[in-house]
Amino acid sequence: MNKLIARIICLGLIVHSIESNFVDLTQYYRQRNDLLISEMNSSFGNDINLTEIEKVANKIIMKAKEDELKVGLINPHLFNPSRHIFEVLDIVKNSKLFQIIKKMPKGGLLYVHEKTMCSADYLVSLTYWPNLWQLSTNNSEIETFQFARQKPQKLQSKNDEWRLVADVRAEMGASNYDQYVRKVFTLFDKNIDPRIQFRDVNEVWNRFANIFIKITPLLSYAPIFKEYLKHAFKEFQNDGIQYAEIRSSFPKLYDLDGNIYSEMAIFDVYQQVLVEFKRKNPLFIGYKIIYAPGKYKVANETIAQQYFDLARQSHEKYPHILRGFDLVGQEDRTPGLLLVAKQILQLPADLNLFFHAGETNWFGSVDENLFDTILMGSRRIGHGYALTKHPKLMEFVKRNNIAVEVNPISNQVLKLVDDYRNHPASVLIAQNVPIIISSDDPGFWEVSPLSHDFYMTFLGIASRHSDLRTLKKLAINSIQYSSLNDMEKTTAFTKWQIKWDQFIIDLVEQTF
Amino acid sequence: MNKLIARIICLGLIVHSIESNFVDLTQYYRQRNDLLISEMNSSFGNDINLTEIEKVANKIIMKAKEDELKVGLINPHLFNPSRHIFEVLDIVKNSKLFQIIKKMPKGGLLYVHEKTMCSADYLVSLTYWPNLWQLSTNNSEIETFQFARQKPQKLQSKNDEWRLVADVRAEMGASNYDQYVRKVFTLFDKNIDPRIQFRDVNEVWNRFANIFIKITPLLSYAPIFKEYLKHAFKEFQNDGIQYAEIRSSFPKLYDLDGNIYSEMAIFDVYQQVLVEFKRKNPLFIGYKIIYAPGKYKVANETIAQQYFDLARQSHEKYPHILRGFDLVGQEDRTPGLLLVAKQILQLPADLNLFFHAGETNWFGSVDENLFDTILMGSRRIGHGYALTKHPKLMEFVKRNNIAVEVNPISNQVLKLVDDYRNHPASVLIAQNVPIIISSDDPGFWEVSPLSHDFYMTFLGIASRHSDLRTLKKLAINSIQYSSLNDMEKTTAFTKWQIKWDQFIIDLVEQTF
Repeated sequence: MNKLIARIICLGLIVHSIESNFVDLTQYYRQRNDLLISEMNSSFGNDINLTEIEKVANKIIMKAKEDELKVGLINPHLFNPSRHIFEVLDIVKNSKLFQIIKKMPKGGLLYVHEKTMCSADYLVSLTYWPNLWQLSTNNSEIETFQFARQKPQKLQSKNDEWRLVADVRAEMGASNYDQYVRKVFTLFDKNIDPRIQFRDVNEVWNRFANIFIKITPLLSYAPIFKEYLKHAFKEFQNDGIQYAEIRSSFPKLYDLDGNIYSEMAIFDVYQQVLVEFKRKNPLFIGYKIIYAPGKYKVANETIAQQYFDLARQSHEKYPHILRGFDLVGQEDRTPGLLLVAKQILQLPADLNLFFHAGETNWFGSVDENLFDTILMGSRRIGHGYALTKHPKLMEFVKRNNIAVEVNPISNQVLKLVDDYRNHPASVLIAQNVPIIISSDDPGFWEVSPLSHDFYMTFLGIASRHSDLRTLKKLAINSIQYSSLNDMEKTTAFTKWQIKWDQFIIDLVEQTF
Repeated sequence: MNKLIARIICLGLIVHSIESNFVDLTQYYRQRNDLLISEMNSSFGNDINLTEIEKVANKIIMKAKEDELKVGLINPHLFNPSRHIFEVLDIVKNSKLFQIIKKMPKGGLLYVHEKTMCSADYLVSLTYWPNLWQLSTNNSEIETFQFARQKPQKLQSKNDEWRLVADVRAEMGASNYDQYVRKVFTLFDKNIDPRIQFRDVNEVWNRFANIFIKITPLLSYAPIFKEYLKHAFKEFQNDGIQYAEIRSSFPKLYDLDGNIYSEMAIFDVYQQVLVEFKRKNPLFIGYKIIYAPGKYKVANETIAQQYFDLARQSHEKYPHILRGFDLVGQEDRTPGLLLVAKQILQLPADLNLFFHAGETNWFGSVDENLFDTILMGSRRIGHGYALTKHPKLMEFVKRNNIAVEVNPISNQVLKLVDDYRNHPASVLIAQNVPIIISSDDPGFWEVSPLSHDFYMTFLGIASRHSDLRTLKKLAINSIQYSSLNDMEKTTAFTKWQIKWDQFIIDLVEQTF
């Protein structure tokens, strides 16, 4: 046996037949190729068969992907997924690949928080509504808002003052005011290098949680809430999204007459908006709500009880809308699911569990929420960033068809990972773990509801070889792993397929 | 069946027996616990059984680890492994855990480059040797050095000037000069935030490769080379290292009389130094050499041929010293192993292959060197940073007992990963893939030959639950996966065990 063959490890197929001293690399190349193909064939998306026209579209997409990869392989700092999203927001918009992905029907947006669905620009426009007051000290950073006919009384500190937004805007000039108020709605700050903007996950979360507190009284003003939802559906549709599962903490709506509505009042608003929206957009599939109160309060038994009661009541009253339950908050600083295991396990069996778990860099502590989320029977796992550190759980997730909700840009902005090429979803993709891609809080980091996350995933997280099959599989998964029932899924797939087929034709005909 | 039980997924053991409505969490806790334990029992190091005294030592180590983890869980930015090594060099030295690890007999240093084994301070001391010249323009950054009786002639650009280091030092003042020359030997710069010091992997590699170029004429001065090796062995020993496998590019030694020695001259120097060193340090095990020429030149067939010839010749002449072959360089910018597959496969079968592979963030391109390194029969994989993206290869590596040489700090400094908690070796540890920990180029980033990398691995990469068994397994692996032969391994284990037992006693008696 010659040296060449002696060297080659044949992965279970040792070749003894070649005895000459002639060094023939054909055998080596073939084995290498077989192994590469076998790996590709077992990764995410490779069960998808492309039609003839899709194969043509695939070439166009892969050309766009390859163009960016080639630049990156030579100059890594020019590769968008190696950089912070805040550094490349403008550059990404000009990417051919991004433009294709933007047009692509992506199915459902399965993981988004209700208060973060719209852009900062849209939120600025809401501050033009009459009767809006802001609380601050000498027009320093705004602490909160309130709609009211009369000046609100409650102050947060003694130097604070409530002023009509219209007055402050007139005083500062509209353009200055808009810039000033816009800062409230976003983590993006063009004057700071995002790599050193926040020291750690706690610092960025403090700022992040603060946005929620500030905008809640703005968005829960009943007339705005309705407009806000309409706008959200429009933004979704413009981004190739036909369906959404929205995590809501059930904000209590209020109006100028002093009415404060019950937590479940939002359901009617949602339904009104949907009916109206579908009239003009019949291919829109709809939405479902996942009740997702804050986890940091569950240590208080009374509050925890309120949450679970509300989950049960809303599910009883709106079983076709309220489809799931979650508990949200910074995982490193909130109690583990184990604390409320008993209450969770007593929830109705047909109320899906979609718990945040493993949204952390820690290994062997906070990440062990993954054990609970899985043992409690979650249908999907929120983030699951730490899942690859738990091979037994990962295997279980795969075998039991539990989907991981991957939110790449959220994970970067909230300081879990810097370079998308290091995102653990690469491993999930390689191991063909069911995943869906989502955006968590797109408005707070100035990205589109889904396209930027798809772009970073396809270009930066997935393999260079991952192609249209990966993208198509992600779209299909977003319906497959949704909480739509079987009948609804059938309709949803039909509506998505119509858009998809048109997209493929447009792409091949290069009409955009 | 009550709701609780309906919820619990029993991982293959569905419990139907409890029919009451009484919610009993005992079952849940037991399952959770069983699963946690089963995961821990299948991770790295859990085949190690600790003796009674080791169990006591383990408690001391785990207390030190837990103290740092607790601080980090509350204030992540105070957790050393979440930060850049350059930010925490001083802080780490004061860590109780680090001090324990420093004392720990770690076995062998299996992955270190010959020119990077000693500290920057030591290299500064070498510039005090007589007859040393430096090349620069008006004492700006030093371009290179040369030992010579007469001023060297060869300039790199027309404004360059050769000056005696002794003269420049006298002119600048010794302290100023030492600071000035020290910058040549290290990537550390206390005036720059390391998170933004280099833009990407190319930029840091340019600077990194430059250090090699500059120090080569300093270190390959024959009288210095010998002293340098002695010092390296001393630094190893002080860091709890008894054995090293050194990647050498066979520098051609020279002296003041104009002699330039053949590439293999270093072998005699090594042997002289070893014999002398072992006389005073009988528990030192020794060293082996891995011939590791630069990969970027293999595209040139003549040069490639020289490499392979030299590998064969040195292996023939020094089969017990020259134990392996590697090709080194920035993987993203050098040819893949495939280019020289034929020559590699023709190397003698008893010359171990230890190829760098997968030292990259890319997925589906450069990382495919992993296929070659494995198919060509590598005994160990250098870095293997991208291995977790290739589950079939990872499984193969595990099944075939190939060790991954993990160099955490190198990966951070050379810009593959920012936070050690994101290092893919977490997954290797969780999956019980054979690994050894090494340091690549410790001198260039001001860390000890092995302790800092062990510290970051144990505290930041491994699970919170990983304990003394993990550390002991790492030490054992460094001998097990070395290129020592069976007889040598037996001696090595005996020598290591003597030191290990003493360490455990010292730790338990708190004598350090």
